[in-house]
Amino acid sequence: MIDNPFYSHEFHGDYDLVPIGRLDLEEGGSIPDCRLAVATFGELNEARDNAILVTTWYSGSHQIWRDVYIGPDHALNPDRYFIVVVDQIGSGLSTSPHNAAGENAGIAMSAFPHVRIGDDVVAQERLLREHFGVETLHAVVGGSMGAQQVYEWAVRFPEKVGRAAAIAGTAQNTPHDFLFTKALNEAITSDPGFADGEYTSNAEVVAGLERHAGIWAVMGLSTEFWKQEAWRALEFESKEAFLEGFLEPYFTAMDPNDLLCMAWKWQRGDVARHTGGDLDAALARVTARTFVMPIDEDMFFPVRDCRPEQERIKNSELRVVEDVHGHLGLFGVAPTYMPQIDRHLGELLDGPA
Amino acid sequence: MIDNPFYSHEFHGDYDLVPIGRLDLEEGGSIPDCRLAVATFGELNEARDNAILVTTWYSGSHQIWRDVYIGPDHALNPDRYFIVVVDQIGSGLSTSPHNAAGENAGIAMSAFPHVRIGDDVVAQERLLREHFGVETLHAVVGGSMGAQQVYEWAVRFPEKVGRAAAIAGTAQNTPHDFLFTKALNEAITSDPGFADGEYTSNAEVVAGLERHAGIWAVMGLSTEFWKQEAWRALEFESKEAFLEGFLEPYFTAMDPNDLLCMAWKWQRGDVARHTGGDLDAALARVTARTFVMPIDEDMFFPVRDCRPEQERIKNSELRVVEDVHGHLGLFGVAPTYMPQIDRHLGELLDGPA
Repeated sequence: MIDNPFYSHEFHGDYDLVPIGRLDLEEGGSIPDCRLAVATFGELNEARDNAILVTTWYSGSHQIWRDVYIGPDHALNPDRYFIVVVDQIGSGLSTSPHNAAGENAGIAMSAFPHVRIGDDVVAQERLLREHFGVETLHAVVGGSMGAQQVYEWAVRFPEKVGRAAAIAGTAQNTPHDFLFTKALNEAITSDPGFADGEYTSNAEVVAGLERHAGIWAVMGLSTEFWKQEAWRALEFESKEAFLEGFLEPYFTAMDPNDLLCMAWKWQRGDVARHTGGDLDAALARVTARTFVMPIDEDMFFPVRDCRPEQERIKNSELRVVEDVHGHLGLFGVAPTYMPQIDRHLGELLDGPA
Repeated sequence: MIDNPFYSHEFHGDYDLVPIGRLDLEEGGSIPDCRLAVATFGELNEARDNAILVTTWYSGSHQIWRDVYIGPDHALNPDRYFIVVVDQIGSGLSTSPHNAAGENAGIAMSAFPHVRIGDDVVAQERLLREHFGVETLHAVVGGSMGAQQVYEWAVRFPEKVGRAAAIAGTAQNTPHDFLFTKALNEAITSDPGFADGEYTSNAEVVAGLERHAGIWAVMGLSTEFWKQEAWRALEFESKEAFLEGFLEPYFTAMDPNDLLCMAWKWQRGDVARHTGGDLDAALARVTARTFVMPIDEDMFFPVRDCRPEQERIKNSELRVVEDVHGHLGLFGVAPTYMPQIDRHLGELLDGPA
């Protein structure tokens, strides 16, 4: 375990670290003492039927959901719903390579086992049931890798999911996405400071993390974002200043092994693992009312990769979100983004399951 | 200078290395003994009005034009035209960082000066005039960085260019493209074997060149190329085999400094340098009959970046080429690619200037 002050209450506000016990993993091995970082908003009602699970994306946490998506003025309204945001395994807040200690000391850093999207969902289901007494969900909502978890929930536990919103993500990861993530990973692992995952501080890998941020600049935002100089709205004076003042510090604060843990999952997200590789059969299992919500300018989860999945889900709609920021539109910086999200999520959450 | 057997007649067939004398550069400094690798096809007619200049792209040479684009069955027909393909400075065949020797010994390797697209065009104009006695061109044709040179020709020497075909490239490089190229460069320069450009063999930089190939896999082809597994048509058995058997060896044979020399030019291609930054004014100079030919699936020279430039050129048409391969469709591997190119180029070359 190494100390990284970024993964703390100082930077992420209130959350609880809830132990869920030993988690045996799909790829073999286990996390002896799995702890999930959880932030909740609102109250569980007596019928225990107003819970919404929110899943998190690569490099993200409950923080962005709390600050941007959740509130009395949003569809994710804590006055109406019991909203549970669970930081994914490897997020740096839940059990992760960099913080593995105590019973988890044997899986610290480069020894951390491979985790799959399905492992996260199994862990979340256990958390909800055992810790919160929640057996069914009004909805599951997530973006990017969070959407992978949403689909996994809807396929693995169809009877537990009333509604599902998959924003900017797919049920079966694409080969292009795999290669994009491979390039991200290689930017990190090629840094001599990475030392095969046994660095003593993320600062030793800062060059690799900056290159990783540089690839995000190419794929995470859209060609139009850069052409329109949309970073000006974020009060940067140049694209270089945006890189140095936003993308680079965003990622260099993070732990390399944690990012790699998430990336490994991301690359292999695939609900067809439940049906012997048959994606049609997997998506046919989904009974949740499902909104598939790609972002029109997304460079690596393009609409045309999301639409065929939506078409295979019975009770679903395609709701395209328009945002020149592309995939990182998920950060909600465009003033036009959250109104679209709230409209779509509002219709989903208010409507029938 | 270092020896690299890839840059040889064995791998590139016939070409001449033509000295054009000292080339003073826009950024300062000069190439004392600039030599351009040139392959010609067909004969210059007595009127000296049937010459077509072909310019080359990043990592490319006359070879691909000879093997794919030029022939009696193609629009670029050597039975009708005198076709001159000039390998760009830094291509590894013309004067380049890795081969600088003799009078150029002072600018070898990391000491090579910054070259601009305009420098190439000035060198090409001198070559055509002094070596071939060609004062005007029936057409200039090029793809990608070659298209940057085409636009530079049409703006810098409007009276010399009858027709212009800019395939998969822009007159003014976009900020997104700049960042893409930055990521490519960083994959190379971050390799400890790069040694600030003073490696003794490109083999010392093989890891960086492979990562560079990996980023090309993400941006050079399209998401659909990977989803449709179009590499199967090239007789590969997996995407990994395609990487290892095609993209990686393609780039690892090349010289890192040479690639960086070309990339620096690519990042800064901008005809508006002639008009104080006014792109409209620069493109208004173009008198050539111009076909702007983006590839519909191009991830970094998308149609919407090419169309606004076309709309600013008086005597122009937008001719979109359809190819799932995206930017690397330029290699002409899709059986549907060359028929489109030949149709468009045929109409351009046969039509009025």
